Order: sequence, then structure tokens, then C-alpha cells
Amino acid sequence: MEAFSDGVFAIAITLLILEIPKIDAPSHLARHLADNWHYYVTYLVSFLTIGIIWVNHHAAVRNLARVDRTVLFLNLLLLLWVSAIPYPTGLLGQHLHGEDADVAAAVYAATLLFMGLSFLALNMYVARREMHQAELTPAMVQAMLRRNAVGQLPYAIAVVVAFISPALSLAICGAVAIYYVFPWGVPNT
Amino acid sequence: MEAFSDGVFAIAITLLILEIPKIDAPSHLARHLADNWHYYVTYLVSFLTIGIIWVNHHAAVRNLARVDRTVLFLNLLLLLWVSAIPYPTGLLGQHLHGEDADVAAAVYAATLLFMGLSFLALNMYVARREMHQAELTPAMVQAMLRRNAVGQLPYAIAVVVAFISPALSLAICGAVAIYYVFPWGVPNT
Amino acid sequence: MEAFSDGVFAIAITLLILEIPKIDAPSHLARHLADNWHYYVTYLVSFLTIGIIWVNHHAAVRNLARVDRTVLFLNLLLLLWVSAIPYPTGLLGQHLHGEDADVAAAVYAATLLFMGLSFLALNMYVARREMHQAELTPAMVQAMLRRNAVGQLPYAIAVVVAFISPALSLAICGAVAIYYVFPWGVPNT
Amino acid sequence: MEAFSDGVFAIAITLLILEIPKIDAPSHLARHLADNWHYYVTYLVSFLTIGIIWVNHHAAVRNLARVDRTVLFLNLLLLLWVSAIPYPTGLLGQHLHGEDADVAAAVYAATLLFMGLSFLALNMYVARREMHQAELTPAMVQAMLRRNAVGQLPYAIAVVVAFISPALSLAICGAVAIYYVFPWGVPNT
Repeated sequence: MEAFSDGVFAIAITLLILEIPKIDAPSHLARHLADNWHYYVTYLVSFLTIGIIWVNHHAAVRNLARVDRTVLFLNLLLLLWVSAIPYPTGLLGQHLHGEDADVAAAVYAATLLFMGLSFLALNMYVARREMHQAELTPAMVQAMLRRNAVGQLPYAIAVVVAFISPALSLAICGAVAIYYVFPWGVPNT
Repeated sequence: MEAFSDGVFAIAITLLILEIPKIDAPSHLARHLADNWHYYVTYLVSFLTIGIIWVNHHAAVRNLARVDRTVLFLNLLLLLWVSAIPYPTGLLGQHLHGEDADVAAAVYAATLLFMGLSFLALNMYVARREMHQAELTPAMVQAMLRRNAVGQLPYAIAVVVAFISPALSLAICGAVAIYYVFPWGVPNT
Repeated sequence: MEAFSDGVFAIAITLLILEIPKIDAPSHLARHLADNWHYYVTYLVSFLTIGIIWVNHHAAVRNLARVDRTVLFLNLLLLLWVSAIPYPTGLLGQHLHGEDADVAAAVYAATLLFMGLSFLALNMYVARREMHQAELTPAMVQAMLRRNAVGQLPYAIAVVVAFISPALSLAICGAVAIYYVFPWGVPNT
Repeated sequence: MEAFSDGVFAIAITLLILEIPKIDAPSHLARHLADNWHYYVTYLVSFLTIGIIWVNHHAAVRNLARVDRTVLFLNLLLLLWVSAIPYPTGLLGQHLHGEDADVAAAVYAATLLFMGLSFLALNMYVARREMHQAELTPAMVQAMLRRNAVGQLPYAIAVVVAFISPALSLAICGAVAIYYVFPWGVPNT
């Protein structure tokens, strides 16, 4: 399960770069590159988000004492959203400055929300079936689940906010990613 | 064999997203996204199908006591069809609402059929040569082969049905995938 | 070294499918698909060639007792040609029926030749430095090198033949791949 | 951490080939292929650079006795630049003969510089926290860091030189890659 999942994470994160459009214009390259800044921002938010989910997924899988068929398919559901991310990333980069930025930002935030909820579902199933290794105390499992759950509310808010301010919606998604970079009480080991 | 195969499965499943076309229209993004629904359906069926084949392939490889050259090349034949899936997936997404939906659906179902038959050939070869680990009883091997074989008939039917109703053909392929998600007598371990 | 190499093989073999062009024509899909047959042939030859090199590379790496910096860079040279294969594959598919089929076929055969020579160089270096595991007798190493070397002559001939008959040049490349599928004296273990 | 990183390296190095443009012209294929030479040069420099970083990254990871959250995120920062490389590679290939070659070459050299600095930051953090395995003497760690640091100055010079001679800027980047191929005092083991 780990090799396949690591592969999907690695491929999805590396395919993101293909979403930044080529610049065919024969001159004013610097200006065209600068005009692409919204692509770079969405690229960064998506890269960081996939990277963080990978770090946490890796830790979660390492903590498992056993795996059943349901875990494999909940994991597959998570990977569905992970591998889908390049599409809304390109969509938002393309439309962030256009007429339909609201729809693109809502689709983007919704994809991250579904990814987060799938990961939460996987972690909750594993916790309820007590599939974790014996070293993990119930308090540690609860702390992990709380930390996992806490990001889903801002994602849900970002879906709604997209129709008011697409840029703010993207900023919320970026803030969630940055929140998860820092351990906030999780020991640095 | 496992690292390479896992890699091909992971890449094929992640490349599927590149088959969903970009939306260049400057307005009515929501409607254009909704019009793409047949791409999402084919994406989902292909994702689930590759995911399931991976779960089963992983279990099959883990059960092997030894590997010979023939196994490597039967495995390569399976990977040929797995890595080809993004093409008929994009083809069906593009033509499902067009004049030639029948041809696209038949090509799609045929690809899944050839993939299934290749996997069956690999499993039958391994069973006949008794390459499984000693824990696997002959009854368990027979149950695995039966479960593996049972999906090939609906795929063959889906190839024919494509010329009557392309949507029904795709629905059959989706139903096979959902059938394989549930263990139906295989213990959940 | 093995994980990275397996990854490059797996990605290159899976990217091949992206070289087969989409069919945008709204009708006569079956005929357009049939017209693409030269893409399928080049796809198959490239897939089989990469698959075989992978099987042999895997065996070669497993036989190594140790690795030095030179091995890593000779391996990198091999991977350069492996990862380049999708380009000449698409080129030959596109031009096989055109005015410049000779150039495309020569470039294709030359890429396979350089790939084969790089693999031979890697195997020769490893043999001369006696980096193989003790179980491998000198006679076995010599047999491996001979088998490795024997494919390079037809590839060189295919480069020249391309300017007489591009189809024959491709057929030679395919024949080399099929030759390597069969063990010809290598035990099936 | 190693499987995911190896995956990103392998994918980024293999995606480079997609940056070389197809040749749609129905005739004069040989001349069009020859005209693409700047794509091949940038392809080669990028391939070699990623390959070398991978060899060194692999050695660095193998030397680690333990990993913390900061290491994971410094590693993610490195992978950000590695996975971004296909974009500036395609950009430089496309513009090396155009009006804006200076900007493209500066962006290219800057990407390599940021990649090198990220790797240096990772190695320095690991050295300061003494996370290396006990076999590694402080003198060996210092030698590694010096060798790592020494390439960053030419990259910085290449960013500036891009505005005088884009070709010289690319040549400097290529020279850095070739410098790192040779061990220069590092034992060949």
C-alpha cells in the first residue's frame, strides 16, 4: 500500500508543473512570466498541500499494525482526490483573473475539502477498528484525529468564500497548508 | 517486479487526470464544467478499475513463492493494458456524446477485457505451475481464479452492448469495478 | 539505485501512451483509429523494448555485490536513453507514413542502439571490476555479456536500413525485442 | 522519505522529454530536428543536474541516523525545485534563440540555484543537529558541505551572466553538472 500511495503522491505533485502554461510570445517574456503569477501561487498551495498530506499519510501508514480491504479502498478514495488536484490547480491558475474566478476557486477548495475528508475518514476507520500499533495511546490517536479534522472547516468556508472573494478563498487554502507545516504540539521527531 | 508494477499502476492512475480537457472559454465556466460530466464518469470508472486491479495484483504478487521469466512477461502484458487505459478513457470521454460513441465505448470495454484476460492468464499460469506460497490451499487458489474470471464475461458483453447503447456499456464496466470493490466471501483482512 | 531506476523505467513506459494522438474528428472514429495503426506498432515495439531492458536491468542490479560512482553514472546514461524513448516513438508514429519516414526510423533505431550500448557499457564495467556476486561464475557473466551485445548489431543495421525501408527498420527493432523475450539458453528461473 | 523523494526525482527527470516539441512539418524533418538542438542541450543539462542531485541526495539520506519534521519540510522544499525544473528547461529550449533568451536563461539558472541552496540548507540543518550516522566523521561532513556549497557561486554568476550571454550562462550550469559527476577527492565507493 505504501509504495503505490507514495507513487501517486509523487506523481501528482510532479505533474502540477505541467499545468503552468508555456509562453509562446516571441517577446516581452519577463512580463508574460510575471503575468503568470496566479499560476505560481496555485502551484505553491497545491504543492504544499500534497506534500503535507504525504508527510501525514506516511506517518499514519507507519503507525498501522494491520490493514484490511476497507482501509485499501478508503486509501484509494484519498488517492482519487490527490491525483485529481492537478486539474483544479490548472483551472484556478487559468481563471483566477477571469470572469469565472469564483467557480474555479470553489471547485479548487472543494477538491481540497474532499481530499481532507477522505483522509479523515481513513483515519477515523483505522482508529475505531483499533488498527494502530500498540505504542500509540488513545490520547495520541485522538490528538491526531483532532488535528486532521481541524483543517476541514476552513476548507468548507473557502468553498463558500470563493463566491465572495476567490483570492481570499485561495488564501484560506494556503493558510491551512501553512498551519499543517508547523507541528503545534506534535513533537518534532 | 513489485516496485516496477506498483510504479506503472500509480503512474497510469495519476495520468488519467490529464485526459480531462482544459476549459479555455472565458465565461460560463460552471456550465462548461457540467458539460464535461461524461469525462468525470469515465475517469471514475477507469480510476476504480485500475485501483482494484492494483489491490488484487498486490495480493497476487505477495502470494508468490517464486517468479520465472514467463511470469515477468505475462506481468508485462498486463501492464501494457494498464498503461494504455488513459487513451481509451480520454477517447470515451471525448466521444460519449458524439456520433461515434459506440466505437469509443467498444474500444474502452475491449481494453478492460484484454486487461482482465491478461491478469487471468498470469494467475492461471502461476496456479498451474504451483508457484503460490504453501499457505494457499488449492481451494483458495480456485476461489481467486473464479473471482478473477467472473468479470471477463460482462466486459465481453460490454464490447457488444457498446453498439446498442454506449452508456449501458460504460455502466457495465462500472458495475464490474463496483463488484470487485466488495469482497463477496473473501475475508476482510 | 534500484528504486530510482525502476521509477524511470515505469514512468517512461507509461508516458508512451501520451504519444498516441487524440482523435478530434467528430465522425468516422473507427477509420481514424485504424489509420493510427503505425502509432500502435511503434508503441508496442517501444513498450516491449523498455519492458525487456527493465527485466534484464533488474536481474543485473540484483547480481551486483557492490556499486561505485561510475556504476551510478553509467546507469544514469542508460536512463537518459530510456527516458528519451517516448520522443522518437511519437516521432516515428507521426512520420512513418510521411515523406520523412527514413529520418524518423533512423532516429528511432539510433535511440535504441544508444540505449543498448549504454547497458552493454554498464555490464562490461561491472564485469571487468568483478562487482558481481560470488555465485555468478565467469562463464555466466560472459554469457550475459554476449546476449547483451548480440542485439546491438541489428540495431546498427536498422539505422542504415531506415534509409532504404523505414518499415523494415522498425521490424528489425521489433525482432530484437522479441528475441530478448525468449531466454535462448538462459534457465527459466 | 526516500521512496517519495526517489519518485519525484524519477518523474521530474522523465517528464523532461515532454518539453521537446513535436515536429508537425510534413517535410525537412532532419533540418527541423537539427534546429531543435538547443532543446537537446537544455534537456541534457537538466537531466544531468537532476541525476547528480539524486545521486547525492541518495547518499545524504542513507547517511541519516534519524529524521525530524524540519528535515521532511526542507526535503519538500528541495523537491519543489526539482519538480519545477521541466518548466524552465522547456522555457530555455524555446527561447534560447529568441529575443528573450536572457530572461529565460536567468530563470533557468535561478531555478538551479534555488535547488542547490535548498539542498545545502537541508544538509546544513542535518549537520548542525548531528543527525548523521556515527560512522561519518565531522571532517567528512564538512567536506560534503563544502562540495555542496561550491556549486552555488557559479549558479549565482550564471543568473547574472544570462543578461550578457545566455549561451555562456547555460554553459556554466552544464559545467557545474560535469564538475559534480567527478568525485574530486571523494572515494569511488
